[in-house]
Amino acid sequence: MRRSERIVRLTRHLVDHPGTALSLTEMAEHYGVAKSSLSEDLAIIRSVFEQDGNGFLRTQLGANGGILFEVDVSTTREQEIMAEILAQLSDPQRILTGGYMFITDVLSQPQILRNVGKMFAKLFAKEEPDVILTVETKGIPLAVITSEYLNIPYVVARRDHNWSEGPSVSTNYVSSFDRRIQSMSLSRRSIVQGARVLILDDFMKAGGTIKGMIALMEEFSATVVGTGVFMATAEPSEKFISSYRSLVTLAHMDEMSGSVVVEPGNYFTERM
Amino acid sequence: MRRSERIVRLTRHLVDHPGTALSLTEMAEHYGVAKSSLSEDLAIIRSVFEQDGNGFLRTQLGANGGILFEVDVSTTREQEIMAEILAQLSDPQRILTGGYMFITDVLSQPQILRNVGKMFAKLFAKEEPDVILTVETKGIPLAVITSEYLNIPYVVARRDHNWSEGPSVSTNYVSSFDRRIQSMSLSRRSIVQGARVLILDDFMKAGGTIKGMIALMEEFSATVVGTGVFMATAEPSEKFISSYRSLVTLAHMDEMSGSVVVEPGNYFTERM
Repeated sequence: MRRSERIVRLTRHLVDHPGTALSLTEMAEHYGVAKSSLSEDLAIIRSVFEQDGNGFLRTQLGANGGILFEVDVSTTREQEIMAEILAQLSDPQRILTGGYMFITDVLSQPQILRNVGKMFAKLFAKEEPDVILTVETKGIPLAVITSEYLNIPYVVARRDHNWSEGPSVSTNYVSSFDRRIQSMSLSRRSIVQGARVLILDDFMKAGGTIKGMIALMEEFSATVVGTGVFMATAEPSEKFISSYRSLVTLAHMDEMSGSVVVEPGNYFTERM
Repeated sequence: MRRSERIVRLTRHLVDHPGTALSLTEMAEHYGVAKSSLSEDLAIIRSVFEQDGNGFLRTQLGANGGILFEVDVSTTREQEIMAEILAQLSDPQRILTGGYMFITDVLSQPQILRNVGKMFAKLFAKEEPDVILTVETKGIPLAVITSEYLNIPYVVARRDHNWSEGPSVSTNYVSSFDRRIQSMSLSRRSIVQGARVLILDDFMKAGGTIKGMIALMEEFSATVVGTGVFMATAEPSEKFISSYRSLVTLAHMDEMSGSVVVEPGNYFTERM
């Protein structure tokens, strides 16, 4: 096999399997080349990814060790992605009666969702989560795409008790929208004790729903290692939760005048 | 830039942007190389992808033309993926009271979801859908991942009318589970008239819910170009809908004896 062909295969394989260790020994046997040649190929790939700021190749030690691809997003690229998202969100036609905002279509675009997923994966990779938790319905796409880049499963808490998931654990929480007490539940089989959990959701006002997810994780004796939301509102400035990372801040929206002000969220200002 | 570096960049870019035309002229300028060199690089990539059966590079004509990557899955790979899925699903511990099955965790694994998304993308690409439709909640991950590989948006019908999505269209349907009349709704802004729609869902019994989605699409004057489900039950053999593609068939499940029989679905037997 020619080096150029091997480089196509290796690049493809790594990009298709983020977070999965690739055994050099197995690869060398599979391709019928010396490990030293393979190491040179990987050095080229590593150097291009690092120059472009879109990935790392890490060496994982141990029995399941090998070379592992981790998604990265350069600061320049983050700003381009954010500019595109803010441009779409600034449209006054997104204002809905009652002071709500239509944002579903933004995260429904494959290119945008992919970029957002990569940004969250980059932000939270160092917390080494084992699983992503969200609550139905609109947080699911964000959980799914980030799960792909971090190579960890996601679980979805239900707002009603769902018969098709077996024994489950429930908790009550106060919804930020209407101040009503609501409940959410999660299948007992979903999360193992001691798991490191990343909470993701699409939208956050006061943080009542996320506080509910945190309470639910206490029932599972799991540790919440991070909380990320696509959009958080500036008001109320006092949230139910102490720390979170948002991609976008909804700073102001006025139905009467048709004005919408969206800004980059604390993703950009607070570095953990 | 050395050829090997250019090949890493091109491979990465193509795999990261399925279904998006890459302009040769722009790329040649960007990399500062002749178009002929770039064409040679792409020929290498094309040949490796085709040998491995994991992708096509297509030439798209017209103003937005260029080279476009399309996901493929080889027959060998499909069988490996299916074997892994069937092994997981054959576990009798998946049987839930009432004759239902716990399958959520299977599609929550990033590697499996990715493979299933690629298989559906491969199956339905030739129907040239503009948008994917599913209904909340469990069909969403499948819709999201397939949307990534087909590079088209997804939309999610809601089981209740949702205040945060603006004016919407509703339809009634009969649930296969309990024979009750239910309703689903979709934001008016979600689908444009004449759109080609791919319907995806995780589980199908008699097909009542999918029939509801088809009826909903009539309200939007949209055309349903395909229907795919992850798992369909063998019984009832008469479905509410005339054609669908399933990855897995739940042939038999018995709570008393703890036996589960899952088989490859008609994905493998019917070629469109």
